[in-house]
Amino acid sequence: MSKEITSREKDYSQWYNDLIIKAGLADYSAVRGCMVIKPYGFALWENMRDQLDKRFKETGHQNAYFPLFIPKSFLSKEAAHVEGFAKECAVVTHYRLMNDPEGNGIIVDPDAKLEEELIVRPTSETIIWNTYKTWIQSYRDLPLLINQWANVVRWEMRTRLFLRTTEFLWQEGHTAHATRQEAIDETIQMLNVYAEFAEEWMAMPVIKGVKSINERFAGAEDTYCIEAMMQDGKALQAGTSHFLGQNFAKAFDVKFSDKENKLDYVWATSWGVSTRLIGALVMAHSDDDGLVLPPKLAPIQVVIVPIYKGDDQKKLVDEKVKLLIEDFKALGVSVKYDDDDSRRPGWKFAEYEMKGVPVRIAIGARDIANNVAEVARRDTKTKEPVSLDGLANTVYTLLNDIQENIYNKAKTFRDAHITIANTWDKFVKLLDEKTGFISAHWDGTAETEEKIKELTKATIRCIPLNNIKEEGKCILTGRPSGERVLFARAY
Amino acid sequence: MSKEITSREKDYSQWYNDLIIKAGLADYSAVRGCMVIKPYGFALWENMRDQLDKRFKETGHQNAYFPLFIPKSFLSKEAAHVEGFAKECAVVTHYRLMNDPEGNGIIVDPDAKLEEELIVRPTSETIIWNTYKTWIQSYRDLPLLINQWANVVRWEMRTRLFLRTTEFLWQEGHTAHATRQEAIDETIQMLNVYAEFAEEWMAMPVIKGVKSINERFAGAEDTYCIEAMMQDGKALQAGTSHFLGQNFAKAFDVKFSDKENKLDYVWATSWGVSTRLIGALVMAHSDDDGLVLPPKLAPIQVVIVPIYKGDDQKKLVDEKVKLLIEDFKALGVSVKYDDDDSRRPGWKFAEYEMKGVPVRIAIGARDIANNVAEVARRDTKTKEPVSLDGLANTVYTLLNDIQENIYNKAKTFRDAHITIANTWDKFVKLLDEKTGFISAHWDGTAETEEKIKELTKATIRCIPLNNIKEEGKCILTGRPSGERVLFARAY
Repeated sequence: MSKEITSREKDYSQWYNDLIIKAGLADYSAVRGCMVIKPYGFALWENMRDQLDKRFKETGHQNAYFPLFIPKSFLSKEAAHVEGFAKECAVVTHYRLMNDPEGNGIIVDPDAKLEEELIVRPTSETIIWNTYKTWIQSYRDLPLLINQWANVVRWEMRTRLFLRTTEFLWQEGHTAHATRQEAIDETIQMLNVYAEFAEEWMAMPVIKGVKSINERFAGAEDTYCIEAMMQDGKALQAGTSHFLGQNFAKAFDVKFSDKENKLDYVWATSWGVSTRLIGALVMAHSDDDGLVLPPKLAPIQVVIVPIYKGDDQKKLVDEKVKLLIEDFKALGVSVKYDDDDSRRPGWKFAEYEMKGVPVRIAIGARDIANNVAEVARRDTKTKEPVSLDGLANTVYTLLNDIQENIYNKAKTFRDAHITIANTWDKFVKLLDEKTGFISAHWDGTAETEEKIKELTKATIRCIPLNNIKEEGKCILTGRPSGERVLFARAY
Repeated sequence: MSKEITSREKDYSQWYNDLIIKAGLADYSAVRGCMVIKPYGFALWENMRDQLDKRFKETGHQNAYFPLFIPKSFLSKEAAHVEGFAKECAVVTHYRLMNDPEGNGIIVDPDAKLEEELIVRPTSETIIWNTYKTWIQSYRDLPLLINQWANVVRWEMRTRLFLRTTEFLWQEGHTAHATRQEAIDETIQMLNVYAEFAEEWMAMPVIKGVKSINERFAGAEDTYCIEAMMQDGKALQAGTSHFLGQNFAKAFDVKFSDKENKLDYVWATSWGVSTRLIGALVMAHSDDDGLVLPPKLAPIQVVIVPIYKGDDQKKLVDEKVKLLIEDFKALGVSVKYDDDDSRRPGWKFAEYEMKGVPVRIAIGARDIANNVAEVARRDTKTKEPVSLDGLANTVYTLLNDIQENIYNKAKTFRDAHITIANTWDKFVKLLDEKTGFISAHWDGTAETEEKIKELTKATIRCIPLNNIKEEGKCILTGRPSGERVLFARAY
């Protein structure tokens, strides 16, 4: 099967598409820009979602659900917000179909036109803050710490499976606070939750930073982000956490009375990650033979393939595997025994390599006689005989090693792709030849950032948190700068 | 707080609305017919969803995700299906907003009109079967056992929180099989999964049956259902499982080659339950003081309220409660310690009564001196002192008793509300005065069913599975009938 994937070297972009399809993560749909998330891809998303959800709840958040539709007038209430989203909105204008009286099949009933059009949510700040208005009166109602798992729609012109689709799944946290500082603390807390999840679970190192004004969320005072590095040297924004100030509270007139009965607008945050993370996960670790999944998130952590001739050997292997599976289950390891007799072992090996299953165990009658099984790890593609005594424990340890190894490999690559540039020529050359993050001085203006983007397609990915202050000159204009920022071409 | 709820006797419908709002399950939204599911209501839904999801997976199903939008032409491909849904479809016609050049704010950009309108899914058979066409070629690809958790939209004219909302959350299973019998078996299997969930977890007895043609799902050959009885004597359809025959396979040309290489259309099922179940749960058990939740699904199973004066007493209670919470956690019981000092115990008692928390423990310094705590159960509203020795275990057993008691109470009520009618006069009188299910003969025609509905607002809820065959005469027309069916007025 692996022959069917284009190699990364030949065409990275095609490699990615091939991989998503061949590994069974997703499929194209009949609806422009929308994808079907297939069972294997969805199982991966469920694992990610469950871990994130656990962390959200541990930090005091509760889930809720708000309407899919947003009245058009709501979207307009926050000026920067509507400016940011108006150009990519799916709009519901009618609520009924009918048989065409002229016999041309089913048509939209012209009499069923909505008085006010409804927008399919591209994000839910407006509908949520309109609701918070009725939920928040006093400091007692604060903080309000709510998250929603939902589908959203942004009418993107160019789409890519997982990375940029018209409809996608995500979570969006929307919190309300009594003070500016508390809202900022929440923004940073959730950024840290995302960063820890990316590093510890996705095995994907990220840089925490703050966005420049140009890249800020529409309606935010500050957008914090985690930025990851893909194998082709392009950056990927993996999650954002916004400090919204009092912008939405003012737009929707949400005030609270404090302990001294003084009225003030509420402070807000919002933060989200989406199914885009699956695209990041794929591009961060996988190779020309298929997916490489971190064990902590892999839907199948271990696959066992029996090697046998005839029923007697099969029975012998089955008995051994049955015990082994019990050991794995006791350790909480997700294991699949693939004894489908319509496929040969070689086919299965390629299939699970494609699917990125971290550990494959092949076991036959002769192995059992020798008290061993062949254990192959997906990340390094090495295999070796391992004693059947305590095999599940050995593999359990191996899974942790693989998790660590994948992270270290990605981190080594990422660290090697942060390069300092002090001249424009070097900046351009690095972007074209070495790729990765370029650490360079910038004069702090939106105009310069825009100009650099025009000239090189590179954007400021972030101003890293805890950045070292350093005097320097802007890479483009030569004007004075107080710190370096990270530029990159990005997904 | 309980005074704020209308009593069931006074106005059952208003009681229901009051309860949903006051207990914090949901709220009205600014979008017509759409609701906001509040954190407490969503926690309840999460518990229901997790249990159902577990059962789906145990029966071999996998989750996936299909697009929100359905091209208009897809909906038209199955004649009965489009007939059933055309009148309640939200239609997306445009994909962009713009600033009105005449200065009237934000308008829909007339240049961004879609070539083909998109329907916001009212159910996903069509988009899914269009996808299955590319996934199914051979018997090896079958059965295909997929479920989706999603939001759907049906433009209902009259809406009720949870029971009938324009947008609702649900799961929809969509399976494909090689034989008619296998598909029928699947339909029945999932009906049983729903029935067991309703009875064992929701403590809500249900009748399993099959729908008459009039009440069948648009596009099904047979619709199986579970029907529950609410406290006002109205029936509620709590879940449906459809045998779709080859209707959708033919509409979307989905064929497979069997082991002999013969081509045939695929056999299908679909099945779903929705957030409507929350409405059913509320109406099945709750009373004039608030929700009564079955312990197995309650977001908070036990609440502990401290009774104290001064810091010393509080400290004493805190220490005891800390140990108690550890005991509860070890037993897997969800417990909340409400020591908010801005609310008095009486307020808290009313609040958790409203929220239907199954067990409330009040504990004070004097109780500790006597080695007891006051344990109150929500279902019977009785309370008694219980020894602190092994308190968590005592309460654990009590939770099981409550679960059983709630079920028995509902079953006694339901059983007392299945009445036989052999004459039209008795039929009408029972419907008006006693309410509940009326078991009566029917001549088997759609016309008679329609006529009965017109005259009485009662519909055939189902023909119970394993119904006793019995000769009789139709309650309306007097024509011969071979079995009784269950009529009721319904939600």
